[in-house]
Amino acid sequence: VLIIGTELLQGKISDANTCWLGQFLRHYNLTISMALTVSDDPKAIEAALTHLYAHNSVVICSGGLGPTPDDITKEALANFFKCKVQASAEARLIAEKNYQRFDRELPTGHGYGFLPTHFVALNNPSGFAPGLWFSSPDRMLLAAPGVPHEFRDIVTEHFPLLIAPTLKQQDMQLVNFRTRGVPEEKIFKELCPGLWEKLSEYGPVSSLPHVMGVDVGITLQGNVALKEKAVKDLIYQSALAPYVWSEGFESLESTILTEARKRSLTVGFAESCTGGLCAHRLTNLSGSSSVFWGSIVSYDNSVKANLVGVKAQSLASFGAVSEIVAKEMAEGARERLGVDITVALTGIAGPGGGSIDKPVGTLWMAVASQHGVRTKKFQLKGNRENLKQRFSQVALYELLDEIRR
Amino acid sequence: VLIIGTELLQGKISDANTCWLGQFLRHYNLTISMALTVSDDPKAIEAALTHLYAHNSVVICSGGLGPTPDDITKEALANFFKCKVQASAEARLIAEKNYQRFDRELPTGHGYGFLPTHFVALNNPSGFAPGLWFSSPDRMLLAAPGVPHEFRDIVTEHFPLLIAPTLKQQDMQLVNFRTRGVPEEKIFKELCPGLWEKLSEYGPVSSLPHVMGVDVGITLQGNVALKEKAVKDLIYQSALAPYVWSEGFESLESTILTEARKRSLTVGFAESCTGGLCAHRLTNLSGSSSVFWGSIVSYDNSVKANLVGVKAQSLASFGAVSEIVAKEMAEGARERLGVDITVALTGIAGPGGGSIDKPVGTLWMAVASQHGVRTKKFQLKGNRENLKQRFSQVALYELLDEIRR
Repeated sequence: VLIIGTELLQGKISDANTCWLGQFLRHYNLTISMALTVSDDPKAIEAALTHLYAHNSVVICSGGLGPTPDDITKEALANFFKCKVQASAEARLIAEKNYQRFDRELPTGHGYGFLPTHFVALNNPSGFAPGLWFSSPDRMLLAAPGVPHEFRDIVTEHFPLLIAPTLKQQDMQLVNFRTRGVPEEKIFKELCPGLWEKLSEYGPVSSLPHVMGVDVGITLQGNVALKEKAVKDLIYQSALAPYVWSEGFESLESTILTEARKRSLTVGFAESCTGGLCAHRLTNLSGSSSVFWGSIVSYDNSVKANLVGVKAQSLASFGAVSEIVAKEMAEGARERLGVDITVALTGIAGPGGGSIDKPVGTLWMAVASQHGVRTKKFQLKGNRENLKQRFSQVALYELLDEIRR
Repeated sequence: VLIIGTELLQGKISDANTCWLGQFLRHYNLTISMALTVSDDPKAIEAALTHLYAHNSVVICSGGLGPTPDDITKEALANFFKCKVQASAEARLIAEKNYQRFDRELPTGHGYGFLPTHFVALNNPSGFAPGLWFSSPDRMLLAAPGVPHEFRDIVTEHFPLLIAPTLKQQDMQLVNFRTRGVPEEKIFKELCPGLWEKLSEYGPVSSLPHVMGVDVGITLQGNVALKEKAVKDLIYQSALAPYVWSEGFESLESTILTEARKRSLTVGFAESCTGGLCAHRLTNLSGSSSVFWGSIVSYDNSVKANLVGVKAQSLASFGAVSEIVAKEMAEGARERLGVDITVALTGIAGPGGGSIDKPVGTLWMAVASQHGVRTKKFQLKGNRENLKQRFSQVALYELLDEIRR
């Protein structure tokens, strides 16, 4: 992978495309062998291409296809492949169509309608600049603008048609089981010894830890339907079964919204230590408003008492981080928000505020619904931002459980 | 820069160290020339070092120094520099000290106490594994674990002593002015023509756009105190002056907490379209609880009415995204949260929900304090996540203004 952009080396922005591409390629049982980031400099790009093609036959290129003077990827590619940049009716047509989509006219002085000789222009479903494609018997190159959504859309649209077929891996499927509640190192040792080996008979197995969860994936090739059934039987007859919360790759937030919508349930939060993060995560998804109604972020104890309805007596006797306060937060917020389910969180995100009884990482959680209210204590690890993420993650897992109850 | 880690190429995690290092090096007026990411494979690491040293004399290396079998950076470095990995009392001492700090014993079978010959072990202020340092007349190498906070801490502690002096740029200072409210392309054209050239007389000028703001930086070398005064005079006598909200590099969130604390002010939010993000951002900082008391995330209109005190009449007549609703949200939340200042946000983050009158990106904001309540309308651009970020950013700018009022 070749990532082009001075701004990435100056710390102005961070490269998101390599990580996304790594995930995308796993569907094809492929891994990136190396990723090289260079500045918008023709000599640097040519040196990088020399290094990359010395070790690889396929290069995917991100960035430098925009309309500004520092976008010189096409010139550098032409130099490297010893050809010229020339007008292309095809590229021009794609750019014109993309501008029309936004009700705008193709500006003058742009370079969109130009391509290195022997390159093909690729449709860009979400931006202006066409992608580029080059193929020779020993080298392939796909180039897309560096803007993450444009890069993703172009690779997603064109990779399966242009590159994947040459890899002869069509009858392939990645089966993924999303688990939570059991640490990665325990799954294949204490919990399910021998499972990894049995799964491996059907294809390469991978184990990918996320925040408070682990994805177990198996890449199937050939006889996919039959193998998928066998693999599912193995998983669901193993001791791992109760820890699987989903198959596939849908995010936890999206699963929550889908399943709550199906059951016409509304949800809300009473957040203290997560400081609004639970609400932020659900509202990152379009259409969340039909399920998520609100959250009361009660950081100060006075807000817990006055706005959520926690009893002053409970705060005084047991402290904010306690089972009874979590319970009263969940019940109070459920009544005040008028939702079917609330999850309440009160804990210590640190680095200050911990004690021997309640160290940093302590979390009391309560879930209130028509089934009543239940509580749970967690003792997690990490710095402040990690802990906020982990607290919100366990809250969302509990919320999903309650929706399915 | 050499980034080592298979997980980075498989899409499991994203590299954060290149971006941070790019920012860090700007204090020394340096830019990364290239960043290469490779897997935990000795041959790949050696090929990468060959490529990097063909174009550079200083390489900073991240990752592969941990205790697991796939951490083979030291072996690869030894192969590349044609030396051996051997026991080092110095490295062992650093690792022992680090384990003691966490009340843990150095595990057996670890590789922490080993180093390639001629390498020096570097203190790791926040983790276990020592960093590495190698220097010859034509090559320098600093290696640190890839865990972002360990990488940052080791580079921050050792770079100024080991590498910076050889660059002979000691009498240097980066003066930074943080602006908001004026787009990058306008600052040096319409607003302040000629300012860039005048500032350039004192050192290289840079302009770095952030979410809804631009940093203008000048790197001073030699006679720093005198030049700093001249540069500040230039900025504060220019038309840019009213747009500068801070100097230096302190974040907006941190500035808000510092200045509110100084004035003993408490703050809160009434959030709709940001869905808890404003609260999340302030609570990412340790010690925020003395200033930030809470936020009411009222996503559904019923919550705006029942919990925040927005009049049903206002919602029915003007809709949720309106000046009057923003005003009632700010006032209602200020009373209910019991804080000195509230900022209320109601807008359309999209992609759905827009209309001709109120397209996606419309935001009504209100600020309530002892000075009364003021409102402001914004029309911003971006996808849903961008818009949430931008909405929260303008809210925090307004909050800072109100704190300073």
